[in-house]
Amino acid sequence: MMHAPPPSLSPEDRAALVEALEVFLPTECILHELEDVRPYECDGLSAYRQLPGVVVLPRDETEVCRVLTLCKQRGVPVVARGAGTGLSGGALPHPGGVLLSLARFMRILELDPIARIARVQPGVRNLAISEAAARYGLYYAPDPSSQIACSIGGNVAENSGGVHCLKYGLTVHNVMRVRVCTIDGEVLDIGGETLDSPGYDLLAVMCGSEGLLGVVTEVTVKLLPKPEVAKCVLAAFGSIADAGNAVAAVIAAGIIPAGLEMMDKPATAAVEPFVNAGYPLDAAAILLCEADGIAEEVDAEIERIAAIMRDAHATQIRVSRDEAERLRFWSGRKAAFPAVGRISPDYYCMDGTIPRKRLADVLTGISHLEVKYGLRCANVFHAGDGNLHPLILYDANQPGELERCEAFGAEILELCIAAGGTITGEHGVGIEKIDQMCVQFPPDVLQAFHAVKRAFDPSGLLNPGKAVPTLHRCAELGRMHVHGGADKFPELPRF
Amino acid sequence: MMHAPPPSLSPEDRAALVEALEVFLPTECILHELEDVRPYECDGLSAYRQLPGVVVLPRDETEVCRVLTLCKQRGVPVVARGAGTGLSGGALPHPGGVLLSLARFMRILELDPIARIARVQPGVRNLAISEAAARYGLYYAPDPSSQIACSIGGNVAENSGGVHCLKYGLTVHNVMRVRVCTIDGEVLDIGGETLDSPGYDLLAVMCGSEGLLGVVTEVTVKLLPKPEVAKCVLAAFGSIADAGNAVAAVIAAGIIPAGLEMMDKPATAAVEPFVNAGYPLDAAAILLCEADGIAEEVDAEIERIAAIMRDAHATQIRVSRDEAERLRFWSGRKAAFPAVGRISPDYYCMDGTIPRKRLADVLTGISHLEVKYGLRCANVFHAGDGNLHPLILYDANQPGELERCEAFGAEILELCIAAGGTITGEHGVGIEKIDQMCVQFPPDVLQAFHAVKRAFDPSGLLNPGKAVPTLHRCAELGRMHVHGGADKFPELPRF
Repeated sequence: MMHAPPPSLSPEDRAALVEALEVFLPTECILHELEDVRPYECDGLSAYRQLPGVVVLPRDETEVCRVLTLCKQRGVPVVARGAGTGLSGGALPHPGGVLLSLARFMRILELDPIARIARVQPGVRNLAISEAAARYGLYYAPDPSSQIACSIGGNVAENSGGVHCLKYGLTVHNVMRVRVCTIDGEVLDIGGETLDSPGYDLLAVMCGSEGLLGVVTEVTVKLLPKPEVAKCVLAAFGSIADAGNAVAAVIAAGIIPAGLEMMDKPATAAVEPFVNAGYPLDAAAILLCEADGIAEEVDAEIERIAAIMRDAHATQIRVSRDEAERLRFWSGRKAAFPAVGRISPDYYCMDGTIPRKRLADVLTGISHLEVKYGLRCANVFHAGDGNLHPLILYDANQPGELERCEAFGAEILELCIAAGGTITGEHGVGIEKIDQMCVQFPPDVLQAFHAVKRAFDPSGLLNPGKAVPTLHRCAELGRMHVHGGADKFPELPRF
Repeated sequence: MMHAPPPSLSPEDRAALVEALEVFLPTECILHELEDVRPYECDGLSAYRQLPGVVVLPRDETEVCRVLTLCKQRGVPVVARGAGTGLSGGALPHPGGVLLSLARFMRILELDPIARIARVQPGVRNLAISEAAARYGLYYAPDPSSQIACSIGGNVAENSGGVHCLKYGLTVHNVMRVRVCTIDGEVLDIGGETLDSPGYDLLAVMCGSEGLLGVVTEVTVKLLPKPEVAKCVLAAFGSIADAGNAVAAVIAAGIIPAGLEMMDKPATAAVEPFVNAGYPLDAAAILLCEADGIAEEVDAEIERIAAIMRDAHATQIRVSRDEAERLRFWSGRKAAFPAVGRISPDYYCMDGTIPRKRLADVLTGISHLEVKYGLRCANVFHAGDGNLHPLILYDANQPGELERCEAFGAEILELCIAAGGTITGEHGVGIEKIDQMCVQFPPDVLQAFHAVKRAFDPSGLLNPGKAVPTLHRCAELGRMHVHGGADKFPELPRF
């Protein structure tokens, strides 16, 4: 939960800041009237809202650097924003600072089908890269659900994943190079086209740094050849435990599916009437397991997957017979979030990661929490990499339900930590999970994070109050770092 | 080339340091007599030698922390050492400091075949992990040529690769978690068993940090299922350019071979009489291209690879008919370095990385440098990921040849940079390539490296003088950062 917001810009300070910005930016690149800045008050985590002091929309890297230099000189906080689709409030504005939008950075600068790279500006939409690469039979692999809207700069900031990241990796595994403006107004060109790079791995540090270390102004990504064919197995199970064991068995067999997703009964019940994906409604859980590659390989892999599912007591197994059926299988998964909106006035999408072998345990834990908080939960998972997306169903119009829902969500994250997992799979920490960072990490690791932050931004102006909590905040909350199995969750079996 | 060595410990300071160490270490864990410290005077880069002030061999993490705390208190430099097989002098001792050997950290602490991880101490040999995992049909993928001897802690320090890293990644892609003692004597537990981790990616920062940020005391690695079958294509080419184009064509077709290696004529000529691998001696270059996985997939992939090689004008193509033949194909590649020792009194193994598409250009550049320096060069490459290992042949007994050889090597690295590559593929920077870092990176990136270093080791006691040059040193050398095509290499075609 958010602490009291920091102080807003006074009208005088705002006017002075705008005047200083107007020295190098045209007026249409600076927004400060209430009606102009209102659209920037939140990102995809709309429960948190905050009006920014000033919004700037620079047009090139030099302007970004000048904005940052100015903010450094004046001690003004800066929050960078891509498409604003983030789900952890990473782009929540600072009331006393500048909201730096990369919306004008929309150009694909280079697309080299031989080297299989694309060099793009950070405001380019994730899907636009794959669309541009399609003429060469190439695509960009990480595919967050928001890929039609989210920007590649935001993907770098959050180290975004997607259904295919089990096989193809997160953003960090698919980005080769970034240009970053530092708070000192310098440009760092980090990474390169080779597998290894000398010096410390600053590229990995930037990926997932949630705008706290610098502002990305250019991204070079890997492109992959589009698989010749993809097929999907839809398997139904009589219990969550059976489905969880099937996931473990697929991975243990050395198969790395292109996607391996699980939905529980409440999730399929919400989605099936909506999209008619053909999901069996009597199953306790279903798995979608995809293979992609060349035809011979895919057929061989699908056969192995189906055999493993059978051995793992699947009650029903179907293999997509054509591309239309494969897309229908996925349509339910992709529509799961909006579909849940049909069965509940509101829902809260959580994001945590656990070791695969703990799937059944953690689901049991969540079902206990449903009773404790008197709220239902629909579960949709990137099961292959242990990334959970529990959707807590609530009604914001019922007094106290939002607070119960938030407490439920916080406890799910602590359950993930207790099971040996983490509080984020692909949505970042932002403002949403900053308190759980006190549970995830002991003080010495948080101190190391702060030391890295100081290396890039000693005055702490970039996205303050996000991602890494102060030790003071953790002490105030009285949170204890949880290591291994937490005593808080006696229902969770010990290792 | 090395600058003048830093000052040695005085006998009085050595005695005082030993006395302080004896407070918590038994005498057999502290070496300080000349005959005892002599074996530690160099690592695999034996051209550089330096006696350490004191050698310590701690037995557990607590002792490592106490050694570091003591060194911090007294301002004594610390160089950590694994198996000492490194090729860039990263473990070269400091004459005024402590050489901290992890030789006693030899235990495999946990091997979980379900989670497919191994938790090991840093002194465990790379190959020992695969040997221990073999009973479960698992193995650890990165396979440096030194894998029978090199330690996993050293692999983390250097971010080591190997023949299979094209498909399975470098050390950083196969390590899940490390415990690190900081110079302040604190233990950081970094990373975890999930794909993503909240906070900055400290795990990636530690991998390849060459002992400058902390001392690794425990490593958790991913294990992979051993592929059911592997087959290898041996293809011969009439020109280096044809072989280079074949490499590009394989990758462009979306195939990621388990290994894709190139050897030129001088290399095959050196090795064939030695191992009888069956290499065609009239070929300008040969490629070894391996596929692994399940039988159907491997057969399909090998067929595609062979077809691509044919289209790329291979003069001869052979596919390994059985495991014995596959191992024979590889025996020549694996024996290439020692075999070169048969045709030349001495050789110097370089390590640089270039974009795959520049292979033929860079080889042409190297052949020009052979004329310039009057020295021959045999070339052995991890072609698939553009990682070159030119072996410069020289005779240390001929006055001036070592110096010519070093200058030749330095110029090869600058050629790699000019071609858009880097000065290291998998051997690290160490002491060997520290001057080329001035050419690789502009001052602002070097400054960012120093800022990260200060975040972990503000007093600069960990492995001083390695990996990242001071800006002062770069200025002294008068090196200019080379960006894109350097004017120094007019023979290198421009992009």
